[in-house]
Amino acid sequence: MKILSLKIFCLKKRFQYSYLLSIIVLLSLCDMHAQQPADYVNPFIGTSNYGATYPGPIAPRGMASISPFNVAGPQNLPSEKDSGWLSNPYVHQNTFLTGFSQVNLSGVGCPDLGVLLLMPTTGTLETNHLKYGSTYSNEVAKTAYYSTEIDKYNTKAEFTTSKRVGVSKFTFPKGQANILLNLGLGLTNEQGAMVKIVSSTEIEGMRTVGSFCYNSPEAAYPVYFVAKFSKPADRYGVWKTPYTYEGVEAQWMGYNGKTRIMENATRMVVGDSIGTYFTYKFDKQETVEVKIGVSYVSIENARENLKKETANKSFEDIHKETYDEWNKLLSRIKVEGGTVDDKTIFYTALYHTLIHPNTLNDSNGDYPEIKTGKIGNTSGTRFTVFSLWDTYRNLHQLMSLVYPKQQLNMVNSMLNMYDENGWLPKWELNSTETFTMVGDPASIVITDTYLKGIQDFDVEKAYEAMLKSADQIKENPLRPGLKDYIEKGYLTTDNGGPVSTTQEYNAADYSIALLAKALGKDEDYKRFKKRSISYRKLFDKDLKLLRPRLPNGNWYEPFNPNAGANFTKNVGFIEGNAWQYAFMVPHDIEGLAKLMGGKKAFSKQLQKVFDMDQFDMANEPDIAYPYLFNYVKGEEWRTQKLVKELVHKYFQNKPGGVPGNDDTGTMSAWLVYSMMGIYPVAPGEPKYAITTPMFDKITIQLDSKYYKNKELVIKKARNNDGYIKQVKLNGKIHKGYFIDHGTLVNGNTLEIILK
Amino acid sequence: MKILSLKIFCLKKRFQYSYLLSIIVLLSLCDMHAQQPADYVNPFIGTSNYGATYPGPIAPRGMASISPFNVAGPQNLPSEKDSGWLSNPYVHQNTFLTGFSQVNLSGVGCPDLGVLLLMPTTGTLETNHLKYGSTYSNEVAKTAYYSTEIDKYNTKAEFTTSKRVGVSKFTFPKGQANILLNLGLGLTNEQGAMVKIVSSTEIEGMRTVGSFCYNSPEAAYPVYFVAKFSKPADRYGVWKTPYTYEGVEAQWMGYNGKTRIMENATRMVVGDSIGTYFTYKFDKQETVEVKIGVSYVSIENARENLKKETANKSFEDIHKETYDEWNKLLSRIKVEGGTVDDKTIFYTALYHTLIHPNTLNDSNGDYPEIKTGKIGNTSGTRFTVFSLWDTYRNLHQLMSLVYPKQQLNMVNSMLNMYDENGWLPKWELNSTETFTMVGDPASIVITDTYLKGIQDFDVEKAYEAMLKSADQIKENPLRPGLKDYIEKGYLTTDNGGPVSTTQEYNAADYSIALLAKALGKDEDYKRFKKRSISYRKLFDKDLKLLRPRLPNGNWYEPFNPNAGANFTKNVGFIEGNAWQYAFMVPHDIEGLAKLMGGKKAFSKQLQKVFDMDQFDMANEPDIAYPYLFNYVKGEEWRTQKLVKELVHKYFQNKPGGVPGNDDTGTMSAWLVYSMMGIYPVAPGEPKYAITTPMFDKITIQLDSKYYKNKELVIKKARNNDGYIKQVKLNGKIHKGYFIDHGTLVNGNTLEIILK
Repeated sequence: MKILSLKIFCLKKRFQYSYLLSIIVLLSLCDMHAQQPADYVNPFIGTSNYGATYPGPIAPRGMASISPFNVAGPQNLPSEKDSGWLSNPYVHQNTFLTGFSQVNLSGVGCPDLGVLLLMPTTGTLETNHLKYGSTYSNEVAKTAYYSTEIDKYNTKAEFTTSKRVGVSKFTFPKGQANILLNLGLGLTNEQGAMVKIVSSTEIEGMRTVGSFCYNSPEAAYPVYFVAKFSKPADRYGVWKTPYTYEGVEAQWMGYNGKTRIMENATRMVVGDSIGTYFTYKFDKQETVEVKIGVSYVSIENARENLKKETANKSFEDIHKETYDEWNKLLSRIKVEGGTVDDKTIFYTALYHTLIHPNTLNDSNGDYPEIKTGKIGNTSGTRFTVFSLWDTYRNLHQLMSLVYPKQQLNMVNSMLNMYDENGWLPKWELNSTETFTMVGDPASIVITDTYLKGIQDFDVEKAYEAMLKSADQIKENPLRPGLKDYIEKGYLTTDNGGPVSTTQEYNAADYSIALLAKALGKDEDYKRFKKRSISYRKLFDKDLKLLRPRLPNGNWYEPFNPNAGANFTKNVGFIEGNAWQYAFMVPHDIEGLAKLMGGKKAFSKQLQKVFDMDQFDMANEPDIAYPYLFNYVKGEEWRTQKLVKELVHKYFQNKPGGVPGNDDTGTMSAWLVYSMMGIYPVAPGEPKYAITTPMFDKITIQLDSKYYKNKELVIKKARNNDGYIKQVKLNGKIHKGYFIDHGTLVNGNTLEIILK
Repeated sequence: MKILSLKIFCLKKRFQYSYLLSIIVLLSLCDMHAQQPADYVNPFIGTSNYGATYPGPIAPRGMASISPFNVAGPQNLPSEKDSGWLSNPYVHQNTFLTGFSQVNLSGVGCPDLGVLLLMPTTGTLETNHLKYGSTYSNEVAKTAYYSTEIDKYNTKAEFTTSKRVGVSKFTFPKGQANILLNLGLGLTNEQGAMVKIVSSTEIEGMRTVGSFCYNSPEAAYPVYFVAKFSKPADRYGVWKTPYTYEGVEAQWMGYNGKTRIMENATRMVVGDSIGTYFTYKFDKQETVEVKIGVSYVSIENARENLKKETANKSFEDIHKETYDEWNKLLSRIKVEGGTVDDKTIFYTALYHTLIHPNTLNDSNGDYPEIKTGKIGNTSGTRFTVFSLWDTYRNLHQLMSLVYPKQQLNMVNSMLNMYDENGWLPKWELNSTETFTMVGDPASIVITDTYLKGIQDFDVEKAYEAMLKSADQIKENPLRPGLKDYIEKGYLTTDNGGPVSTTQEYNAADYSIALLAKALGKDEDYKRFKKRSISYRKLFDKDLKLLRPRLPNGNWYEPFNPNAGANFTKNVGFIEGNAWQYAFMVPHDIEGLAKLMGGKKAFSKQLQKVFDMDQFDMANEPDIAYPYLFNYVKGEEWRTQKLVKELVHKYFQNKPGGVPGNDDTGTMSAWLVYSMMGIYPVAPGEPKYAITTPMFDKITIQLDSKYYKNKELVIKKARNNDGYIKQVKLNGKIHKGYFIDHGTLVNGNTLEIILK
């Protein structure tokens, strides 16, 4: 679809150029244009197969984003938002569109945001989305741009965004046109909105969002907005559908439960099911642009965001600015060789790693602090949406390598949360702690960042924060079951997912040990190093797998290692089974191999995971598995083989081309690293496993503030299907299939020579 | 109860005076104080027997008022707000208190306002009103002051108000104290609120109100507020009880439908069932004052109202100011003679006539225009709550006599509505037209005002507005059925209450005729004079009553003249039956008498209404009946007898001491006039019927802008049970039992001499 749209674009452009130039020359110019990294992005990737991305525009790490919303209404069954667990505002195969949401989450596993639904319609006003919804055609999705045609209304809808402002452009036919802003319908499980029509060109209000993963309803919070219309409405008003009243009084309420049209309403209206309509009478085709500024602080800030970012700028101006910003960022990695599809999945994945964590602060620096209820202010960027159980494994490592300033800001944001709330984040979303998933991943991210040389943050404070969650037994929201963990070395079946959680705490403790060592805190180093391998107590020698223990220390019985795949619940593990967790001790592969009876047995058991089809590409616990063969001399070819197979099998240039939830870019980061031939196999440890790159040459621009070289080149010598013969760094032979981060970035060229 | 509280007050004061003065002197001083008109007001009158008044404080024509709210919860059955048609926030015999509402309507027949419920509690926070509600004791209600003790919490609650600010003072015992502001519970049938905690001493927000009489839900509107606390809360937050979610997702929502406590919430929260709590930890008895400023325009204006009216003023200061304002107004009529109870019911009634119409504009002049959605501004007072079907009969006449400037502002407010909306009001409530009841009463009020010499308004505009509603057949919201009325002289049974409506249009047309005559518009005078007697076509000679006609002109059959009393529905009449409407043609009593076969037959038929117990003191159509005997020579004693009997029977110094809904002071105005011995028997005509005054001497201060005399004295010579022997004006015999307004106010003394 992407390719098609480029073709059409080129065809259109053609006639604006001089007729003197031949079509061939023109097409080659188009091809040159098409070679910009941002032009390879296909935002449809991940919009099916539960990828949970959306095709609409967003600026890099933007607060605002626009997604077509096609998950409401029986027309969209089975992927209908209220009929099952659906976490995305858009599903590619769905057909019934009910608006364009202005704040969205990308690649998450729980429904939230997906609100402020803008919808153009024509003819008589209809405010029920089941009635005004429509099919749509000719979708175009590109970096910072999305458009479609709404069949029922013969109306074209185009969208772009700046960081905090969604920009919509509707081209209406002659006649009555309506622009609805539906504040009832949304993906979030929260209800409640406020709206106030300020004038015939402006609306302000808020929508409640929250209860991510059906948790923490008391932390539900508002997203504020101001909407500006390029043309004054001829008529406007608010609709409200109240709940149906029951009891004696209902008999007097002829209007009970019925939608009210509040024409000319200019005072505040609140309700769970409300919206505004702006209506025009056009005597010819006309366009209307709507800019919607958002803020998590206040309406005033939403207005200021809108003004600062988009005042006096056209749709085209804003689109170009955001496109350029994307292209600059994506161009930090240049790839050569590979097919168009290879480049497309690569740059789209890189694009998906640059969406979350995203900006929380307003243009004036204001942001809501976590938990305190106060409004903080930052001169930098306050990041939000830290899905750390996912992203600690590779996404932050990618940021440290390619965008270290962003990574620094993310660490600083995490430390600010500690300042505000007394705790590092676990799964933070718009300054609410959702406590989703398990473990204590912040320590890993911070250690990994520090050990890669990005150190201009308050590491002592970070260390203090890590120790607090690692050692405070009472009232510790981050590490439930810590008492057992410290005393016994593991969590028992008294806790949810005791094996998984033990492994996560081990991983975190290992990172603390590494940081302790770096900071010269030798006692702590020893203590946490020791703590980090306590998972061994859960190793069942007979099964050669980890297994939950009862509070009395006995094995949990009966135990089926296969149970728990595909997100079914089981006693020992979170979102996985014994196979998918057994090897998730990347910091102690040597120890694990020993438990299993040596490297051979280890390798055999690992291969079994794949052979028995127990490997799950769609979830995080086992995503490093393919790289673990690098630990076994002579078995490295398995890594190379598996990675290539998995990339081709699960990552494709199509809507279903992500194996499952993108997990705020974690799957995408896996792909980016895997296609570059390196992977941060042990989070916290500044090292990469090496595999076959999928491009002939990859050039990473390095940030001169952190890295002495201007760029890092990864080259594949010989483009064939053979396994790796030799690895060279700056022309010298590099031993083994791992490389330290420092070694890598201080070398200029990593050459991977195939057999 | 009132008397008791005065005693306590005096006892407390005692020790502040010099010990040199004897107790006797002190008590006499106290008695002198007690003789102020404002001290006679007993706000409990009308709080039972459907009077629909409330005992809490309000400033004269204030926007804010405070009422104890005791109509929610099964403890209050049968007078429970959701279990029947209940139009008041307080019922005297109820016992279960759930808060103190900050905006209220007095004496209306439909539920509305009664929101922003402030409630002090102690101990563990509880947000469910059914659980935190309490019985209460030791109520004291006085002009501008109400207090009670809340049994469950051992907490004293005291209240006063300025014009736009409710002021509450809570005296808590040692321990945890909570001040709840419940934005869910309320008397109105609307739902929906917004709240934002600004700081530990301030809250801002709004509550939706409207759908008066279960009408016009699309015109529901917000009341904005800002609440300021005298002491910073130790803890605060918002609670929210969402609706129960149904369907598939409900299984994941452990919090489904449950109340959430949102501690520290400082961003906007909206919902149908929300509230705030401010919690204190007191180590001794402490008081907290809460000032709540309201506005129908904006939060900013609510804040400005609060600041301008109450900043830096103590509870006591504000109470004194409002008391003084009341006392000044009430003192415009001084009564001598009569019992304490007589004075109490008199001044309480006068107090009740000074509540509605009330102030709509903020202190900066802003107010919401009617229907336009715009914010208007006035340098005077914009009045609201025009229950004109009630008040056209006597309340505005009382204002013209005693408070002509207020009446002028009311007329100007009505004309502003015409400017804004194209129509005069019918039953206007906070700039919504509720279209409650029937007829076109604005014309009558304006004519009556003009003919009494209060003429400094744009009478030509008023006349234009009257003609519009009198003549515009299509799309006329004020006069449905106008086509039939003009063509046939009456509405047919195709319309609701066709006889009543015909009579109302006749009355309005008669006023238009009178004004036309005064303005020299002779053609119009003739036309409307003729129109004003068309009710005669509905006169059934056999029954000597008015009777509905079918569209074909035939009488409606079967017809039971007794049907329709006590608010039961019937075909011909609105809130009444044939007896209660037959004589409601005060402008054509001569004509009616003729139809009935002469004055004797008229008198006989009129007496029958009372003898058959068909007279309804509790509703407006027949309230002038007792005065109609004055039209029949020799029968005037019946008026004197009946009025006295009715006053004693229906108006008493007790909660049930108003015959029914006070109808925004209409019943009270009836009492005030009746006790003064004059009654504006024919609305629109500047004349009064005369009856026996109930005081020895009544002195009305006259406004020098409109009246040449400083005061008007009505004296009763001989205080006995005899009927009137003679009437003298300034010592000269006055013939008959009517007196023109001009004659009356130009005379100094009206002397009514009993036999």
